[in-house]
Amino acid sequence: MEVKAFAPASIGNIGIGFDIMGLCIQRPGDQVVARHSSTPGLRITEIRGATGLPTDIELNTAGLAALRLLEHLGATDMGIELEIHKKMPSGSGLGSSAASAVAGVMAVNALLDAGLSKKELLPFACMGEQIASGGLHADNVAPSLLGGIVLIRDNHTFDIVQFPVPPALYTVVVHPQLEMLTKTARAILRPEVPLKTYIEQSANIAAFVSALYTDDYDLIGRSLQDVIIEPQRAGLIPGFHAVKAAALAHGALGSSISGAGPSVFALCKGAFIAEKAGKAMQAAFSAVNISSTIYTSPVNIEGAGIIL
Amino acid sequence: MEVKAFAPASIGNIGIGFDIMGLCIQRPGDQVVARHSSTPGLRITEIRGATGLPTDIELNTAGLAALRLLEHLGATDMGIELEIHKKMPSGSGLGSSAASAVAGVMAVNALLDAGLSKKELLPFACMGEQIASGGLHADNVAPSLLGGIVLIRDNHTFDIVQFPVPPALYTVVVHPQLEMLTKTARAILRPEVPLKTYIEQSANIAAFVSALYTDDYDLIGRSLQDVIIEPQRAGLIPGFHAVKAAALAHGALGSSISGAGPSVFALCKGAFIAEKAGKAMQAAFSAVNISSTIYTSPVNIEGAGIIL
Repeated sequence: MEVKAFAPASIGNIGIGFDIMGLCIQRPGDQVVARHSSTPGLRITEIRGATGLPTDIELNTAGLAALRLLEHLGATDMGIELEIHKKMPSGSGLGSSAASAVAGVMAVNALLDAGLSKKELLPFACMGEQIASGGLHADNVAPSLLGGIVLIRDNHTFDIVQFPVPPALYTVVVHPQLEMLTKTARAILRPEVPLKTYIEQSANIAAFVSALYTDDYDLIGRSLQDVIIEPQRAGLIPGFHAVKAAALAHGALGSSISGAGPSVFALCKGAFIAEKAGKAMQAAFSAVNISSTIYTSPVNIEGAGIIL
Repeated sequence: MEVKAFAPASIGNIGIGFDIMGLCIQRPGDQVVARHSSTPGLRITEIRGATGLPTDIELNTAGLAALRLLEHLGATDMGIELEIHKKMPSGSGLGSSAASAVAGVMAVNALLDAGLSKKELLPFACMGEQIASGGLHADNVAPSLLGGIVLIRDNHTFDIVQFPVPPALYTVVVHPQLEMLTKTARAILRPEVPLKTYIEQSANIAAFVSALYTDDYDLIGRSLQDVIIEPQRAGLIPGFHAVKAAALAHGALGSSISGAGPSVFALCKGAFIAEKAGKAMQAAFSAVNISSTIYTSPVNIEGAGIIL
């Protein structure tokens, strides 16, 4: 018997919610197959779609997440094989490691019929993702697992809030062919924020949350302005300012860096604008000789699931 | 002919929304009477209930706010007398200067039957309040004028969001007999915020906004934790930590400094808990030999008005 779990990509931070907010998209995403084995213990038998990822359970985000869940269930002696199908690039800012960790716990939970809810699975997925990002941050794990637009009020107690999603909210993410490690993007950040900038950003996040509850697309646009992290990381992404400007010029409500980058996302009202904005963003990357992939989707309110 | 306007006190910042958020309470509040006069120009004829406040139009918050409105209306030559009835203490953290400014523009708008909406009056009230607080901040002016719980996303464009008010949300403010100037309380603040602290606070304000939309009283409590400003200003208020602890011990959802202080507020579920918490807070001030006044009220969703 085997089960296959799918966990989607996510837009970490959503610009203004550094380390605390994320948004689930429909594709790309990772798959993890879990199956019983007569050999005791958890093993990774295959990793498809990526090279260089560790098959050592303790070093692999999907493996470690699954292991932590098995420890919780007292089932570490059970023979389980994992097969990881990477269908999204690492270091893209799309929450690739989080998706693998989420798919890992979803697959094991289903294989063992353990019956844990998604919220109960969250801590184990976070523990797996931690080895990739260097810290316990649920801002990709939680949206990939739960779907929708998610706030992590407290990473230690996993105090999670799921916001309502305005019905016409559409996303576009443009992933340039550049690799950036979250650890690197994190290391360049100044350890202090000017008080004035903090005030501005806190007003923007408060307004953004309100706009989600009131379907106020204009306010989403006015408040989606990251004045803290984006200015510091923009220089790591060649062409960033032109890409963002292209999105806004083509009707996007707002645009910023997805997660730690280098992917750039835009939120749009409706699929048509998202398609137009995405093409313009891709053209702006092309203008600096960077090829890129476009992903457009509504907000994915389902999150991770089992593929039947 | 004369009109009398009332503008209520407000809880600036609400702990976690430094400079961007405020909450309107029912009392205390200031009154401004405006009447026609045969002498051209705007004059302050009397200030009741306070000593030492300037009667010079340009130096008085109510006077300057009214003057700015008259300039906008092209009516500075009109003979108008203002009578200011201060019914709340200055330097209390209750938005006293904001209330006077708001009552000033409300009274003049009504006297001249100018027909400006409250949102249209907001900039003029802010310009008046500016001479007291040393900066253009609408976090007391906007709630006093509009009522409810208000976010000022942008002080320059007066981009305002009014949040819904959970029906059982009750406030208590305890005003100790200490005077503190906003300028002083502002001057001690460090110009930088640690990135880690910023992240924590931004998660709290996002969760707080969500809790207002979902009537989630527990989440209001968990998110009402100011980790940036309160720790810096607490030392200016003798007994603060004991007063806050008393509020929480008696069932308050959360407690922090009202505006720049020295008043301390608590948000509570229901009037009964607010009464109990208020008395406990007052007792904690008494324990350090500070007498205080308690104000309990639901959130005032009406804001300023004309007294008929």
